Amino acid sequence: MRIDIISVVPELVESPLGHSIMKRAQDKGLITVELHNLRDFSTNKYRQIDDYPFGGGAGMVMMVEPIIKCIDSLKAEREYEEIIYMSPDGELFEQRIANELAFKGGNLIILCGHYKGVDERIREHYITREISIGDYVLSGGELGAAVVTDAIARLIPGVLGDETSALTDSFQDGLVAPPVYTRPADYKGWEVPKVLLSGDHKKIEAWRFEESVKRTRERRPALLKDADSKK
Amino acid sequence: MRIDIISVVPELVESPLGHSIMKRAQDKGLITVELHNLRDFSTNKYRQIDDYPFGGGAGMVMMVEPIIKCIDSLKAEREYEEIIYMSPDGELFEQRIANELAFKGGNLIILCGHYKGVDERIREHYITREISIGDYVLSGGELGAAVVTDAIARLIPGVLGDETSALTDSFQDGLVAPPVYTRPADYKGWEVPKVLLSGDHKKIEAWRFEESVKRTRERRPALLKDADSKK
Repeated sequence: MRIDIISVVPELVESPLGHSIMKRAQDKGLITVELHNLRDFSTNKYRQIDDYPFGGGAGMVMMVEPIIKCIDSLKAEREYEEIIYMSPDGELFEQRIANELAFKGGNLIILCGHYKGVDERIREHYITREISIGDYVLSGGELGAAVVTDAIARLIPGVLGDETSALTDSFQDGLVAPPVYTRPADYKGWEVPKVLLSGDHKKIEAWRFEESVKRTRERRPALLKDADSKK
Repeated sequence: MRIDIISVVPELVESPLGHSIMKRAQDKGLITVELHNLRDFSTNKYRQIDDYPFGGGAGMVMMVEPIIKCIDSLKAEREYEEIIYMSPDGELFEQRIANELAFKGGNLIILCGHYKGVDERIREHYITREISIGDYVLSGGELGAAVVTDAIARLIPGVLGDETSALTDSFQDGLVAPPVYTRPADYKGWEVPKVLLSGDHKKIEAWRFEESVKRTRERRPALLKDADSKK
């Protein structure tokens, strides 16, 4: 699987994709992530990629031509599953989408919006999917691209050290994760729940399930409703 | 305003906070962002900060003591408005929270979870607010911390070049932004809407408002419902 990220400031995503799990995934050849500087695809000598919005107003708009040049050059090399545009009004990203894209395993292009966003004609004619990581505004789509890439990469078999680890994450079973504790068992009077020290694995599993359900009900009741409606 | 980010892999957040708008904001002295490596607060010579979970199971848990040592050292230096833990089951981050934290302007500590998360006792006794950037699982809280920091920083007066720019962002008026276009007006037959070339600013504003409402209805109907319920 390959993810190509197109950005005006590709440096922004370098470090989140260059350390820890993302680095190991790339070192092992399980995923390839390439950053592309949109300015390299400018059609003039000033490396211009944005211009004033038609109709006036604040902020700059990313131009059609450099984006098309960049995407076309990538599509000439290989097939892509989706050409994604990160935008605050896109489809809300959630675990289900990460699962779907990781499972399909097709290559992705992720275009990061910056300034006031891209010329609408790119969205109409080139983009196959628009994704938002949440209802808030960021300086650009770069953090969103890093979020989507990270969420997908960790689902690719072999990326996480412990194969079972992703399966016990929040959301994968429709519940948020239960509380976790480690040593010391007693920190200045703050004690770990006794059941976790009991060695009784059946009891421990039951306790964890109850805590997950309780916490999901308190914090993400919509997840339980979704599960009920699927029954 | 100062934001202290505590992480096991602080390198992950270096580049998103070190370029573009975030860099300019820090260079201008409008915000201070400090990264802290949790391993520097380990209580043993192996720089250990995580340990196996009580009760067994996959993944490691971040230990109580290094986190307390780190947070206490920060609190000894200055007041903090909130001690935030980035967690998938936290309160869903949205523009309203960014506005609130930027407006209050108090210093923040952001603790990034990693592995299976922090020992629950930290959440019970030290954390004042738990935030999730969305219903998906990432390798750690670092991208979340970068998202929260970026969303807040761009609201601080003087951070964005054009003062009016943040006000016309999506969500700030309860609507998503209208489509934007820039030159050329005709790209191989793809034309810009004629109204934007009319020079009639009243008409342009009316068109943009209509497009915003239409797009909000299609893509984020909940925003319109929220606005209606506040009337």
